[in-house]
Amino acid sequence: MTDPGAVSDRSNRLLRALMRLPVDMPPVWLMRQAGRYLPEYRALRAAAGSFLAMCQTPELACEVTLQPVRRFPLDAAILLSDILTVPDAMGLGLTFVEGEGPRFERPIRDRHDVARLHVPDPFAELRYVPDTVRRVRRELGGLCPLIGFSGSPWTLATYMVEGQGSDDFRRVKGLLFSDPAALTSLLAILSDAVTAYLNAQIEAGAQAVMIFDTWGGTLAAHHFLRYSRDPMAAVVEGLNRRRDGVPVPVVVFTKGGGAWLPALAETGCDALGIDWMTALASAREATGGRVALQGNLDPMALYAPPERLKAEVEAVLADFGGGAGHVFNLGHGVRPDVDPEQVGLCIDTVHAVSRRPLP
Amino acid sequence: MTDPGAVSDRSNRLLRALMRLPVDMPPVWLMRQAGRYLPEYRALRAAAGSFLAMCQTPELACEVTLQPVRRFPLDAAILLSDILTVPDAMGLGLTFVEGEGPRFERPIRDRHDVARLHVPDPFAELRYVPDTVRRVRRELGGLCPLIGFSGSPWTLATYMVEGQGSDDFRRVKGLLFSDPAALTSLLAILSDAVTAYLNAQIEAGAQAVMIFDTWGGTLAAHHFLRYSRDPMAAVVEGLNRRRDGVPVPVVVFTKGGGAWLPALAETGCDALGIDWMTALASAREATGGRVALQGNLDPMALYAPPERLKAEVEAVLADFGGGAGHVFNLGHGVRPDVDPEQVGLCIDTVHAVSRRPLP
Repeated sequence: MTDPGAVSDRSNRLLRALMRLPVDMPPVWLMRQAGRYLPEYRALRAAAGSFLAMCQTPELACEVTLQPVRRFPLDAAILLSDILTVPDAMGLGLTFVEGEGPRFERPIRDRHDVARLHVPDPFAELRYVPDTVRRVRRELGGLCPLIGFSGSPWTLATYMVEGQGSDDFRRVKGLLFSDPAALTSLLAILSDAVTAYLNAQIEAGAQAVMIFDTWGGTLAAHHFLRYSRDPMAAVVEGLNRRRDGVPVPVVVFTKGGGAWLPALAETGCDALGIDWMTALASAREATGGRVALQGNLDPMALYAPPERLKAEVEAVLADFGGGAGHVFNLGHGVRPDVDPEQVGLCIDTVHAVSRRPLP
Repeated sequence: MTDPGAVSDRSNRLLRALMRLPVDMPPVWLMRQAGRYLPEYRALRAAAGSFLAMCQTPELACEVTLQPVRRFPLDAAILLSDILTVPDAMGLGLTFVEGEGPRFERPIRDRHDVARLHVPDPFAELRYVPDTVRRVRRELGGLCPLIGFSGSPWTLATYMVEGQGSDDFRRVKGLLFSDPAALTSLLAILSDAVTAYLNAQIEAGAQAVMIFDTWGGTLAAHHFLRYSRDPMAAVVEGLNRRRDGVPVPVVVFTKGGGAWLPALAETGCDALGIDWMTALASAREATGGRVALQGNLDPMALYAPPERLKAEVEAVLADFGGGAGHVFNLGHGVRPDVDPEQVGLCIDTVHAVSRRPLP
């Protein structure tokens, strides 16, 4: 394993921790750290007209990506984008209905729809993404690393088949039960598409990548392995894990996947995202140090009184228990109406606890 | 342990399996087996005027409880009721808004609201429940046992504080963070109320009881133990576990609690409900035969083509792996628009597999 750099500061704390190398303190970043809770985000979003326009304009996407790392001493920037850009590039017609979330004009309903799909060329149909990555890297100038990301094949498939969010996943599970071969084909195409998409982000300069499996946790255990874990393993297998001789760590995060961490570690990833329902100590025991762990403060703790927020942050750090291989994060994204002061306090607390002399 | 009866048939298969005694085949019942998917339920519900009126009229609640055990060879009846009857009896004013679910007119917002709460007398303010239990037992005449139930203290608290369903539990977690003592008081009152409510059901004739912890799985692990598991343990501790010398088994079901099964077994219950995301084999390994397991077909499998439904039922049975201590069930309730034929096929498949000679 190549050491990504000897100094532990914002420039490489994240990459070292993801590779389970020693760091001076756990790196901190927060899912949805570039988001609506920041007034500067809301201003830019209003000017952009729509969320998709903001994602698809490298200048704006870059600016939004940088906002939280300017305001807070975060150890990583994460690309501002949406997990549904890949199916959008496949021709499904992504729109966002205000207050209702994403919707596809042309959802996938059967094997004929699957047969018409193609793997998009990320440098053509998704060109705004590598363009944004290059721009962010240039603007960051080594301050901290940039994380690229994608939805997992299963999670993309759920939206593509449901046509929108769902609370029971009846359509996509309907396909699983009635035509498992069609679902398997869809997941194979998506595995190829996600692999190409993440490799394009790596080629453009993403220094770590994360696969968000938002809906893997809705599957029965045996279906999870086959329809969510295995396609993610295929993606991890196909990724370029180094760029210019430096490792590019891969994080896999299945929300609600706490019972399946050993199976997720078998994807070959470097780190696992851990939701707030899973104790880090149990996660560490279950994975036996084979992967780094990223998480896992309950996002609702950002609404707690300051003293209680600090106690909850300390509980997360104590639960991991020290040593290499921990990236501090939430167990899910920052909510849109969180007070930015609370985000600052959360980060400061991680730093303060880490600087505290040992008892 | 007293053997609840020597013959394995509908009259005692469930109770034997919950006590981990040998049975000729796994007993089968389904959460929400008395529900909208049955045309006879919809007819009675329409005549009753409202869901609450149906629950609160022993004659109607009894009839609905019996409908599925008349139609299908199920091994248990489960009381038709709602988990929110207890907070309703505490004076919160339960209503059901069509298409939106339950709502309380007077939710709990702070310690002052908590201080005003009383533990309802189940034989007075909830009298329709023991009355229904007695009536069902009389009508069943020993055909199969009757299961009583209650929501868990934490799950009742979530609805009482949120005032309705929630997707982020911000208010109840807000109370947890801002005034944990108030939440603890609320849970103590609810533990007493749930204990008295279940004991009243047992006294009236319920032969097993189940605690539904629908929302325990939304908590961080350390909060789960304190605010959901511990209050359930207090309830289990206070239950009358025998009636007329016969054991009354207790089932605890935390949806999304797959990672916490050993901690849940420590409540002292006889059996754990298992959701469909948790493999029965892992659950069995994690609990080491200390409790029976109830579950865990994905409710969406009831929409699958018949051959596939049969395969999924067989997979559940194979996952448990045979031997004593399995109660076949779904991992969550029957959906309102499931075809009753599919429910019949599901039950028949459990029976057919169990009668199959060993290979």
